[in-house]
Amino acid sequence: MKPLRLSEIAEILDGEMVGSEDPLITGAAGIEHAKPGDLTFLARSSFGKALAASGATAVLIGPQQEVGIPAIRVSDPYEAFAVYLEQLQTDLDRVFPPGIHSTAVIDPTADVSLAAAIGPYSVIGPGTVVRAGSRLGAHVVLGSDVTVGGDCLVYAGVILREGCQVGNRVIIHAGVILGSDGFGYFPGAKGIRKIPQVGIVEIQDDVEIGAGTCIDRATTGRTVVGQGSKVDNLVQIGHNVIIGKACSLSGQTGISGSTILGDGVITGGQVGIGDHLELGAGVKAGGQSGISWDIPAGVDVFGTPAIDFRESFRMFASLRRLPELLRRVKRLEQMNDSGADGSAGSNQNEKGQG
Amino acid sequence: MKPLRLSEIAEILDGEMVGSEDPLITGAAGIEHAKPGDLTFLARSSFGKALAASGATAVLIGPQQEVGIPAIRVSDPYEAFAVYLEQLQTDLDRVFPPGIHSTAVIDPTADVSLAAAIGPYSVIGPGTVVRAGSRLGAHVVLGSDVTVGGDCLVYAGVILREGCQVGNRVIIHAGVILGSDGFGYFPGAKGIRKIPQVGIVEIQDDVEIGAGTCIDRATTGRTVVGQGSKVDNLVQIGHNVIIGKACSLSGQTGISGSTILGDGVITGGQVGIGDHLELGAGVKAGGQSGISWDIPAGVDVFGTPAIDFRESFRMFASLRRLPELLRRVKRLEQMNDSGADGSAGSNQNEKGQG
Amino acid sequence: MKPLRLSEIAEILDGEMVGSEDPLITGAAGIEHAKPGDLTFLARSSFGKALAASGATAVLIGPQQEVGIPAIRVSDPYEAFAVYLEQLQTDLDRVFPPGIHSTAVIDPTADVSLAAAIGPYSVIGPGTVVRAGSRLGAHVVLGSDVTVGGDCLVYAGVILREGCQVGNRVIIHAGVILGSDGFGYFPGAKGIRKIPQVGIVEIQDDVEIGAGTCIDRATTGRTVVGQGSKVDNLVQIGHNVIIGKACSLSGQTGISGSTILGDGVITGGQVGIGDHLELGAGVKAGGQSGISWDIPAGVDVFGTPAIDFRESFRMFASLRRLPELLRRVKRLEQMNDSGADGSAGSNQNEKGQG
Repeated sequence: MKPLRLSEIAEILDGEMVGSEDPLITGAAGIEHAKPGDLTFLARSSFGKALAASGATAVLIGPQQEVGIPAIRVSDPYEAFAVYLEQLQTDLDRVFPPGIHSTAVIDPTADVSLAAAIGPYSVIGPGTVVRAGSRLGAHVVLGSDVTVGGDCLVYAGVILREGCQVGNRVIIHAGVILGSDGFGYFPGAKGIRKIPQVGIVEIQDDVEIGAGTCIDRATTGRTVVGQGSKVDNLVQIGHNVIIGKACSLSGQTGISGSTILGDGVITGGQVGIGDHLELGAGVKAGGQSGISWDIPAGVDVFGTPAIDFRESFRMFASLRRLPELLRRVKRLEQMNDSGADGSAGSNQNEKGQG
Repeated sequence: MKPLRLSEIAEILDGEMVGSEDPLITGAAGIEHAKPGDLTFLARSSFGKALAASGATAVLIGPQQEVGIPAIRVSDPYEAFAVYLEQLQTDLDRVFPPGIHSTAVIDPTADVSLAAAIGPYSVIGPGTVVRAGSRLGAHVVLGSDVTVGGDCLVYAGVILREGCQVGNRVIIHAGVILGSDGFGYFPGAKGIRKIPQVGIVEIQDDVEIGAGTCIDRATTGRTVVGQGSKVDNLVQIGHNVIIGKACSLSGQTGISGSTILGDGVITGGQVGIGDHLELGAGVKAGGQSGISWDIPAGVDVFGTPAIDFRESFRMFASLRRLPELLRRVKRLEQMNDSGADGSAGSNQNEKGQG
Repeated sequence: MKPLRLSEIAEILDGEMVGSEDPLITGAAGIEHAKPGDLTFLARSSFGKALAASGATAVLIGPQQEVGIPAIRVSDPYEAFAVYLEQLQTDLDRVFPPGIHSTAVIDPTADVSLAAAIGPYSVIGPGTVVRAGSRLGAHVVLGSDVTVGGDCLVYAGVILREGCQVGNRVIIHAGVILGSDGFGYFPGAKGIRKIPQVGIVEIQDDVEIGAGTCIDRATTGRTVVGQGSKVDNLVQIGHNVIIGKACSLSGQTGISGSTILGDGVITGGQVGIGDHLELGAGVKAGGQSGISWDIPAGVDVFGTPAIDFRESFRMFASLRRLPELLRRVKRLEQMNDSGADGSAGSNQNEKGQG
């Protein structure tokens, strides 16, 4: 997090300096939170007003934008901001010191690349492979016959049970557990019987898995998280679930056993999905939705049980009018009764004649 | 996971060979996912069609079933399949190497059976007991005065705090935390005051607890999980909760303090149960139900707040007709107004006279 | 947990002995669960009946209360009970043995107070500070440049990533993870791109954080848990969330990124709060509420989406009458049709003629 001149940052971002000043930049923040020394960015939707109110020292702007403070012009200010943030990250060597720590317990039959980093007190089981460029934090436990591909980051306290397979450039955050037994029992002759869970978990390339998330091994075969998918914290993924490519599962989402998600599925926080279901590609489920049936590709759903989100919103809007509706129907009934006094065929009349 | 001849498997399962072939079996899978080399099973509800479409090499069949591929006839194909899966499990000695690892830190006052296995970097506190046949993975932390009964499996990263008691044949999956302080505070004279949590957690025989689940110690007395109950991943169980025997709690269920569950209670995923409630034996709560009051024995509930599931389904079905109902009532009101044209006292008339 | 005479307890609590007996007290429990040997307490709302049915040996009573068993009179029986429970707690030296365990791996540039306790296999990174009176359990991992203030309790298996700052008298329960990357991506030119998360987590004084809870580091700046707030187990707090002072978040609550909670906000279990929202001071959200918009200070909400709890309860009460309402409206429609017998064009008439 070394301070840089704005012109140095422009060079990193391959952007064009705007204005004659070249201030020292010491940090970064969104436009509302930026303080002096910070670089911020002007989103398409940002207004000059927000920038005027911001304490930012400099700003990343797009091709058509003009501002009154020192700036760097780039093609995509948000993407450039992300690239700049990379400069501010704690050096990886400080987070994952290089080399294999002397306290790591590595089975003699494991195959750990000399170009991998292994943190203190990590334990690597028999037959397990860790490829070049991967870094494991402290207290990581890899069971037997696990594979961790190249250039992965595996944070402290992660546990990968026997047989699990992790691809390349995967990021696994602290406390993640892969390969626990699936939740499978059946009523046997002598009481509840556990179904052995002999499958594995497969995490494909470029996946990121949030802290505390648990993904169960398959009963037989594989539980899969597809290439490029992002899973947030404290998510629960049951046995034999298949998650497609480039999905995004928000915090505390839960997916029951054997359910299949197509590519690009997005869930809000605390979404629950039943077992043996199929969600088509691109399905979006709003926060806390409870999905109880298959959802076709491209459909947005909300609610418990989850239905098309537009119907759900209409339903909720009507629902708020329900107490009033009850009163209106009561009035109609009274009008019908009293209005019908002189005429034949009203309920009351019929009763009176009954 | 050594390949076996079908006849060898028939012997293990005490089943009868059907057909003249004796293929080599290398794996197992459900009928839809089976590939060549796999043994599958024919459930009561399975159709020959599914088997015809399956790649399975052989199949477990019941007394009345006939198939066209190599088979083993058994009394219960599903139970036999589970028994066969046990053959495919990774050898326990590979997952939990026998013996006490040299890096384990064991308090001199602890009583660890020589017939127990203790993994690398596990820590066992003063006064703690681990009985024969139990296996602890790497990085297990048992606090002071803990008891782990016989023949338990305690996976990596499990933490049992001081005083907790675990019965026999209990399976505790990775990352489970037993005995954290309950969430108890009250407004004291000098601000929010913590209520000390001096009770324990008691896990009875044959319980299984899923990865990442947290069970709080009692304020005084015990938080209890009853004999044979199965708890899935990332479940939260509050202080002084009493869970009966043979319950099944699905992933991310949460139970607030001092609530009592009778025997055989079943919750779907993400169910929430309030504090100081009582659920009778055999209550079933559908996924994401939110339980706010006592539920009598044998009742199935659904929804938030949870009510009888049939009423809940009727309610939801009516709810989808609510926007239409609003239109219908509006039409009735208009008909009433216009139909009343000739009579006194209708709204419209009055307005017209106003 | 040494047995004490009631008179000894009276002295500790600065209370007045009532009755002539001085029994030996061996435990404590609420009035319903108390057994012989237990001390219990008489809440304002407790009745003599409950005490008569209780097995308690002695009871804490308030200024105006009279009972027929040995008692101690104090100004606030509940608070006195909490003070007595402190006597029953396992000695801290048994839970967190004093001193720095020989197996702890401490970076030479870390600054750990000699008056701190560090458990077995804990790992403390470069530049990290642990102040006097703080106790870390076994297997705690502090990354680089972390600060843990004075008199904190950090239970086993806690992971604090680089840069996180923890105040004084903070209690962090087992398995907590602070400072994981926030869940931030955007569609870049070459596919989904990760937004680097360069901020930190700040935990202020007197906070308590429950087992398994995950709090993400800010994208830039800080994710904050304010002074005196209490967070239960398995809670998920997203990047850049700001939680005020003296808040109480129950188990499995989830708060999405950049949301701000005022002081004294209370959430029930499994509450979900969307991103970029603002909840005013003193907002209370009932269990499982899903909050999708800002909530003004002092408002109580319930439901998904969460609305004023009174409206929500009215809505739910009306909802249970909805199936009946559908029938009533149908009858009104039929009456309108038949009541129109004398006029042209009613449905029924047409049918009659059909």
